[in-house]
Amino acid sequence: MKRIGIADTTFARFDMARAAIDELKSTGTGFKIERTTVPGIKDLPVAVKKLIEERDCDIVMALGMPGAEEIDKICAHEASTGLIQVQLMTNTHVIEVFVHADEAPDDAGLAELTENRTRSHAQNTYNLLFDKDVLRNNAGRGLRQGYENAGPLDAKRGDKH
Amino acid sequence: MKRIGIADTTFARFDMARAAIDELKSTGTGFKIERTTVPGIKDLPVAVKKLIEERDCDIVMALGMPGAEEIDKICAHEASTGLIQVQLMTNTHVIEVFVHADEAPDDAGLAELTENRTRSHAQNTYNLLFDKDVLRNNAGRGLRQGYENAGPLDAKRGDKH
Amino acid sequence: MKRIGIADTTFARFDMARAAIDELKSTGTGFKIERTTVPGIKDLPVAVKKLIEERDCDIVMALGMPGAEEIDKICAHEASTGLIQVQLMTNTHVIEVFVHADEAPDDAGLAELTENRTRSHAQNTYNLLFDKDVLRNNAGRGLRQGYENAGPLDAKRGDKH
Amino acid sequence: MKRIGIADTTFARFDMARAAIDELKSTGTGFKIERTTVPGIKDLPVAVKKLIEERDCDIVMALGMPGAEEIDKICAHEASTGLIQVQLMTNTHVIEVFVHADEAPDDAGLAELTENRTRSHAQNTYNLLFDKDVLRNNAGRGLRQGYENAGPLDAKRGDKH
Amino acid sequence: MKRIGIADTTFARFDMARAAIDELKSTGTGFKIERTTVPGIKDLPVAVKKLIEERDCDIVMALGMPGAEEIDKICAHEASTGLIQVQLMTNTHVIEVFVHADEAPDDAGLAELTENRTRSHAQNTYNLLFDKDVLRNNAGRGLRQGYENAGPLDAKRGDKH
Repeated sequence: MKRIGIADTTFARFDMARAAIDELKSTGTGFKIERTTVPGIKDLPVAVKKLIEERDCDIVMALGMPGAEEIDKICAHEASTGLIQVQLMTNTHVIEVFVHADEAPDDAGLAELTENRTRSHAQNTYNLLFDKDVLRNNAGRGLRQGYENAGPLDAKRGDKH
Repeated sequence: MKRIGIADTTFARFDMARAAIDELKSTGTGFKIERTTVPGIKDLPVAVKKLIEERDCDIVMALGMPGAEEIDKICAHEASTGLIQVQLMTNTHVIEVFVHADEAPDDAGLAELTENRTRSHAQNTYNLLFDKDVLRNNAGRGLRQGYENAGPLDAKRGDKH
Repeated sequence: MKRIGIADTTFARFDMARAAIDELKSTGTGFKIERTTVPGIKDLPVAVKKLIEERDCDIVMALGMPGAEEIDKICAHEASTGLIQVQLMTNTHVIEVFVHADEAPDDAGLAELTENRTRSHAQNTYNLLFDKDVLRNNAGRGLRQGYENAGPLDAKRGDKH
Repeated sequence: MKRIGIADTTFARFDMARAAIDELKSTGTGFKIERTTVPGIKDLPVAVKKLIEERDCDIVMALGMPGAEEIDKICAHEASTGLIQVQLMTNTHVIEVFVHADEAPDDAGLAELTENRTRSHAQNTYNLLFDKDVLRNNAGRGLRQGYENAGPLDAKRGDKH
Repeated sequence: MKRIGIADTTFARFDMARAAIDELKSTGTGFKIERTTVPGIKDLPVAVKKLIEERDCDIVMALGMPGAEEIDKICAHEASTGLIQVQLMTNTHVIEVFVHADEAPDDAGLAELTENRTRSHAQNTYNLLFDKDVLRNNAGRGLRQGYENAGPLDAKRGDKH
């Protein structure tokens, strides 16, 4: 039985953990969820590290919604840098799912984007843990999470796996 | 008995530690305060690490007020990066409470914002140590510290815990 | 028998791994390929570290195509910083091959640039592992990957090896 | 007998070490000075680490004068990031005293600012080592180094220690 | 017999290693040169670390010529950050000699600047290893590498060593 960690924030304006857990459970079995909630995205790196080291998670989803101001972009950069460090300190994948408040024109659009990106990355998380061939088979195919896929630059070339 | 560290600066223009300690004591019991004061925010990372490693703190509040200039933004970024590193080196949460000098139009507004954000994060600190369910129950609910809460994007969705 | 790791992404719009492997096999022998595919470039650092530490790679190519937006530039910076950290943690070279979506005017140009840069860095990878004299003999000669070589500032001086 | 390290540069246009040592000696006793000089501010982090680990310093002043260009700002950021890392690796305070070439309108003003900031931080250094109550008693009081103190936002609140 | 490492790139448009080695040999004796060449500046950090740890260098010169575009500035920042990390991981000085492609108006000027800066830093390298008093005696004297020295802000003050 594998363990998938879910770390989210009270700052986010969407219950990203609910979407992530729902999607994970729809995708497959063989895992247990470990959850933790922190105030904001800068609290995620240590929360994720504790999920890996103290609660034995095999992979973690780090869920957050940075604000729209310049200072929020810097916070997101600091959090992302920390999340990469955690991965290097633990040799464990952490799937960062950040949705920026200015990525959609209104609340409804932002909610939809957040739900879709979270679900899409929940599938990536499941595949990294249980089915890496799905990722391998999509290498270089211009996949996106939350937006429509960009697709390969040249369909003919892109198909030559 | 848990230990809560409080690290603040002589650069700040508000006695953030007073507000933090007052709020912590109003919120609950079962902890002892360990304090340290340094010149500026770039001195906070090592001060916080020493509180954790040399004075056995279980969590630390890092309190500071970066100035309004571009160089101050860079200092704040460096300090924040260091505070995240400390957390990863010690597997200990550090709640950063930074109030930027340009976040309010005048001194009175800045003082009020600083007091409110510090108190709000003091509650987060207490909850991370003693009552993580409070955070879990507010996951994705758009909480803010010092400003009015943003709330969930979609009240109906947001309530589905 | 040496091992060359290839880490690529599903986000990229070109099958960079195919070009890399094809070029490596055209260039020489004495190595085995170890592949891994992750969602995006921020997942590359830990994927590369795992190739080095868990699958015994002697060198790794990290292949990715950051998007054209400002946020993508920041992601690329975070990934690059992580890739340098991996190298310092493992004393192993990692050849980063990033092609930015705004480096060419259209899809065809981007595909060609990506193919050429990947192949050129595949040769660098091979040479770092098997034939460092090729690099040494080209020190300071203004080589480029994917674009025409810039050449030495002063052909006469530049030739004095 | 404590040891205070002083690391400075040949790039700086002011003998900051002279001011620092003079101020330290005027402020108190019980310490020995260990000096090192490097070319520029990016050489300071390792120089400071060597003062701490190879020459047993209990605290270090890192003195530098970054230039006025954009590239110099980036150098200063890299040096500052390194100085914070040194502190976290050694659990030792390092007081960074950087004066940017564009902080004063002319050479005379820059010299005066540099002298004043260096002396002010020499006192901070002494107090961190020997008299932390001085810092504690000035928490949140808007102290500045080289410029006039900003003071507390609200004198009445600020006095409530 | 000390060992001085020289790491350079095939991306640079000038044979910086030749200038560095020539200047080192003109300056003194008692050292052996260890060379390595990598594709670009982001490959320098690990190359330098390997010179220190696998080829026993006592100090290293890291030679590179970042391009003129914004992306090149970011690459240079990443490389510099990595070079500082190497120094902190090994307690060994690494003299970074970077010449940016936009520091001179034409190829001839860039070549001259590159040669002069490289030679000047070769002397710094030699002095850090064999004659630290030369650096100490020039503390705060506004030395530059490749450009005319800026000199001390106030000649009278500056002379008071």
